[in-house]
Amino acid sequence: MTTSADASTFRTSVSLKLREFAERQASFLAEIDENAAELAAHALSFTEGGKLLRPTFCHAGWLIAGGTQSAERIVTAAAAFEWLQASALVHDDLMDESDTRRGRPSVHREHEARHRAHNLVGDAVQHGERVAVLLGDLLLSWADELFAESQPDQRSLHFWSRCKSEVIAGQYLDVLAQTSARLTVEDALRVVRFKSAKYTIERPLHVGASLAGASDDVLDALSDVALPLGEAFQLRDDLLGVYGDPQATGKPAGDDLREGKRTVLVAHAAELGDPELIYSLLGTEAGAEKLGPLFREWGAVEATEADIARLEAQTDEAIDRLGRDARAILEPLVAKTIHRNR
Amino acid sequence: MTTSADASTFRTSVSLKLREFAERQASFLAEIDENAAELAAHALSFTEGGKLLRPTFCHAGWLIAGGTQSAERIVTAAAAFEWLQASALVHDDLMDESDTRRGRPSVHREHEARHRAHNLVGDAVQHGERVAVLLGDLLLSWADELFAESQPDQRSLHFWSRCKSEVIAGQYLDVLAQTSARLTVEDALRVVRFKSAKYTIERPLHVGASLAGASDDVLDALSDVALPLGEAFQLRDDLLGVYGDPQATGKPAGDDLREGKRTVLVAHAAELGDPELIYSLLGTEAGAEKLGPLFREWGAVEATEADIARLEAQTDEAIDRLGRDARAILEPLVAKTIHRNR
Repeated sequence: MTTSADASTFRTSVSLKLREFAERQASFLAEIDENAAELAAHALSFTEGGKLLRPTFCHAGWLIAGGTQSAERIVTAAAAFEWLQASALVHDDLMDESDTRRGRPSVHREHEARHRAHNLVGDAVQHGERVAVLLGDLLLSWADELFAESQPDQRSLHFWSRCKSEVIAGQYLDVLAQTSARLTVEDALRVVRFKSAKYTIERPLHVGASLAGASDDVLDALSDVALPLGEAFQLRDDLLGVYGDPQATGKPAGDDLREGKRTVLVAHAAELGDPELIYSLLGTEAGAEKLGPLFREWGAVEATEADIARLEAQTDEAIDRLGRDARAILEPLVAKTIHRNR
Repeated sequence: MTTSADASTFRTSVSLKLREFAERQASFLAEIDENAAELAAHALSFTEGGKLLRPTFCHAGWLIAGGTQSAERIVTAAAAFEWLQASALVHDDLMDESDTRRGRPSVHREHEARHRAHNLVGDAVQHGERVAVLLGDLLLSWADELFAESQPDQRSLHFWSRCKSEVIAGQYLDVLAQTSARLTVEDALRVVRFKSAKYTIERPLHVGASLAGASDDVLDALSDVALPLGEAFQLRDDLLGVYGDPQATGKPAGDDLREGKRTVLVAHAAELGDPELIYSLLGTEAGAEKLGPLFREWGAVEATEADIARLEAQTDEAIDRLGRDARAILEPLVAKTIHRNR
């Protein structure tokens, strides 16, 4: 039986592990050059204020499969997911040209601003982009380095590798989706499955459970929970990306609309309302202001909330099949994943 | 004793391993989406025509430490370096805004062109950049996945992790170097040490030797060979980047000057000639035409060749300390690394 105090202890252990690892890397980088050590400091500060969702699900998988609360090995593996997530965010913000992340400038904008502030040689925008490419690469490299420190068996390593490839493939499908005039709800849901559901919930659960020696049956049952839950997670994200409180999300209001993201919410709106109008406004400043109220008027918010409710019910049924102990572990996480304001 | 036939067998084994791995990944990606499988095809085609320098040094380290010719384990580890290199090249070309690589369009330019050719929605340049970010990430992820398949011990894994961090730190120092008005020969050499010497020669040797159970003394002696050799390698690259034959290098003439790279050659020229003129022309089309002859006139080419000769002599002395068997393995590689036209 896991308590909220246990969960809090685990989160603290993950944060300490990230700090300890970053400090080790900083010392090593400082031997190369003091300036290189800045990269480690920036990487660590970037993880502050994260929800630690993937580490938490990794831990949940471990506990469900009978692992010991907060063992060193699971803390290490779980923390690796946070470097992976940090890498994905740095490169995502670069690809989406996002200005902010967690209420602060995105990495490329931060280094662009530093370039300007110090009046350096060369193009400030290009400089910011270069640093973001490299910092994202470093974080991805760290993710693997830290994961290897958990001494994973072949099966856990397999799930970890799958996780990395799936999120990149999902992002690629998302990039392709942005290049087509139309996107159906079905297409949008496939992007969500790989970019979010497998990456955020299923694979972290699999890695944790696998490290604790779970049977294949348990792994399958975890997938049944993870996929609807992960889709619901992303649909909530889509709604927060348009209607979220900037104070809570750390992103300006309507940011997803400004960036022209092709979400399930947008696909619903296109099926229920005026697709011509949507696609002419999506990705513009005017769109960021006007589309939110229009989507609501056309019933796209209601349709997305209905999807979330349906997915939550599926998640709940799947948890039943895992049994009472698993429910005690998963239920609080489900609530936090689906019902949240950031 | 290794023969050139053995070396050729090894190269073939590495190419086959890369193909087998990419095909495995393509099948997996195709299960996600047919479009995602394109990524694997693109990744594999990108490695064609490479010099396989890092795999070759990894194999050399293995042989020097007494490993068996072309064993599966060393082929696997060596091939992983090629995915790492492919990742670095895709992201390098993106950061440097290079148009070509190995005589073909760079990844971001290729996908930018496809976007235009198919008249897709959105900005073609941004699309090309997004694909390059993701393909580079996928390749970096593959590098770790394949390396793990060689079942490395802790020490080999340590050298592999160091290799990845060092090349990223070296690139970061290079990016920082581009932001300062002046760059000394000493500063330029430090970038070279991490971005090239450790990454291309020292760490591949260390990983290979370590997998074969080399003693720490052998690892140190390999460093003594690798660092001067790796620096000489990069100085040759600097010369080829300005004076190379485009047919052989697969890059347009004067490409490094057009991109404004702060190389040791440039640092020599700035110390010997007119720095104001250099820094006003570097990174421009006019600079790509004018600076090459000026550098030669000022003696910067001669100074760089003198550095290479000095480093080659140091390499040779260090090889002596490793003994006759090691010389038979390393000598042909030294020649190919330092005296080449591509």
